[in-house]
Parts: sequence; C-alpha cells; structure tokens
Amino acid sequence: MRVFGIDPGLRSLGWGVIDVDGARLSHVGNGQCQSGDGTLAARLLRLHEQLVDLLTRYQPDHAAIEVTFVNRDGAGTLKLGQARGVALLALAQTGLEIGEYAPNAVKKTVVGVGHAAKQQVEHMVKLQLPGAMPVGPDAADALAIALCHATHLSTRRNLVEVVR
Amino acid sequence: MRVFGIDPGLRSLGWGVIDVDGARLSHVGNGQCQSGDGTLAARLLRLHEQLVDLLTRYQPDHAAIEVTFVNRDGAGTLKLGQARGVALLALAQTGLEIGEYAPNAVKKTVVGVGHAAKQQVEHMVKLQLPGAMPVGPDAADALAIALCHATHLSTRRNLVEVVR
Repeated sequence: MRVFGIDPGLRSLGWGVIDVDGARLSHVGNGQCQSGDGTLAARLLRLHEQLVDLLTRYQPDHAAIEVTFVNRDGAGTLKLGQARGVALLALAQTGLEIGEYAPNAVKKTVVGVGHAAKQQVEHMVKLQLPGAMPVGPDAADALAIALCHATHLSTRRNLVEVVR
Repeated sequence: MRVFGIDPGLRSLGWGVIDVDGARLSHVGNGQCQSGDGTLAARLLRLHEQLVDLLTRYQPDHAAIEVTFVNRDGAGTLKLGQARGVALLALAQTGLEIGEYAPNAVKKTVVGVGHAAKQQVEHMVKLQLPGAMPVGPDAADALAIALCHATHLSTRRNLVEVVR
C-alpha cells in the first residue's frame, strides 16, 4: 500500500511518499514543489502541474493532506487556501479517498505529543522511515502526514478485523 | 472580443460571458456552478469540471475574477480561498491573461460608486447588456466583473492609441 502526503503551501508545497507492508514502513520519495514567481494564477498552475506529475509517477493507493490552520492573518489564510484548493483538486482528480489531518493530530500520531517542534517531527520521520532524507521542513511534514494516515488506515483495518 | 467573468464561491460560483465589439456590448451567457454535497475535495472537483466545460464551450479571449475579500471569519476566508484557487487554476489552464478586481472596483466601474447595493449592480448589468437575465446574484456579479474587465481593456487600448 502506497501513501502520498501533502503539506500545502503556496511558495513551497511539501510532498512525501511511503510504502506500507503490514507493520513495515519504507520511504519512497519526498520533495518540495516551488511555485516560483509571477501571477498567482501562474503559480497555482505550476503547483498543480507538479502534483499531477508526481501522482502519475508514484501511483499512490491512499492520499492525505494537512488541514490548514486558520490564523489572524486573513491574507495569509487566503493565499494558503488557494494553494490548498489546488492541491486537493489534484488529489480528487486521481479518484483517491483523501485523509485530512490537523497539524496537532499529525504531531500526536508521529511524535506522541500535539505540540512537538519541527525538529522532533523530522527526527521521528527519519526514525520510522530508515534512509529517508527530507529535502526540507515541508517535505518532512508531508512524510509525517503520510505516516499519520498510514497509522489511521491500519488502526481502522485492525478494528474491522476485531469486529469480524 | 469575448470576456469570461467569475465571482468565486464554494457553494455557488457565478460566471458570465459577454461579447465586446467596439463600444457595443452583448450578453452571451451566465450561470452559477453548484458544488453540491460531499467532501471538500469532491466539491472542488465539481466546480473545476464545470468551469473547464464552460471555458471550452465559450472560448473566451479574456478572463477576469473578483479578488476575494478577506474578513474576520478565518474559516470562511479559507473556504472561499480554496474555491478561488480552483477557479484561478481553470482560467490559468486556458493560457489566458487574467484580470483581478476588488469588489469595490467592479461596483465603481459598473455602477459608478464603490459601495453600491447588489440590486444596483444587477440593474446596471441588465441596462448595459440588453436581454441579460442573470440566474442569481452570483451570476449578476460575474457579468459585472466581465463588464469591468471589458471597460479596463478598452481604456487600455484607447490609451495606447492616444500615445501612438
């Protein structure tokens, strides 16, 4: 089972891919899509094109994306919202069911506490995915989101088996 | 010259198409894309599919979209941002240059004052586009955005001619 995780952002959008085989987790790839310069429309188009390419290349079975934190900076929320809309669209276009997790839920699942520092997240990602070298903090977050989704999927599966 | 206008929204996204031939303006079409029920991803996918269909059907030469008003409701701003991101992407995918106008700029151009009521906007849209029957307030706003863009494009053209 392959899981694709996204940490949405307009300037830099993190992505991470992991494979899950029972309890065995392995790193497949990670990166950060850059939207570059130009108009907002051109930047959103660039993000979408890169994501479509990645989803075609990696052919995931499941996908997850971080729920955007709404803060007091309305303009920042709007920018992030526009990037997240385009990322969600790219996932929806693959027909995959999409998991959505708040930042604190991701940290709690991967690190054990909801208010973990960025470095702790990266440390735990590397520990759980031997050989993974996230190219940056957004890529590390995306791998953490994929790990969080994998955990929830396997919990759901175990629960179904217990109920049976 | 054909202009496509968009009034972005998650639940209902207004669109309007007008033709401009010198000083003559004519109404081509208008409507409101509904995102329906389901997950946010499914709703964004539905909006994007409808917009891509409309842009293919009407083949505009120019496009314009309203700049989203950032308000104190962070969750609302985020929702609107995600819908606007998908609408901007659909326009960017056509390769058209995109005009962006704040709500007050649209009202000022179409009605003459920046703080016009919705009914005034609809009234002026019908006056300038004989025969136009907007299906709802979002469609009327989208036609107003197209009118605003047409005015700015023709002003730009006239200025270029004066300079020559």
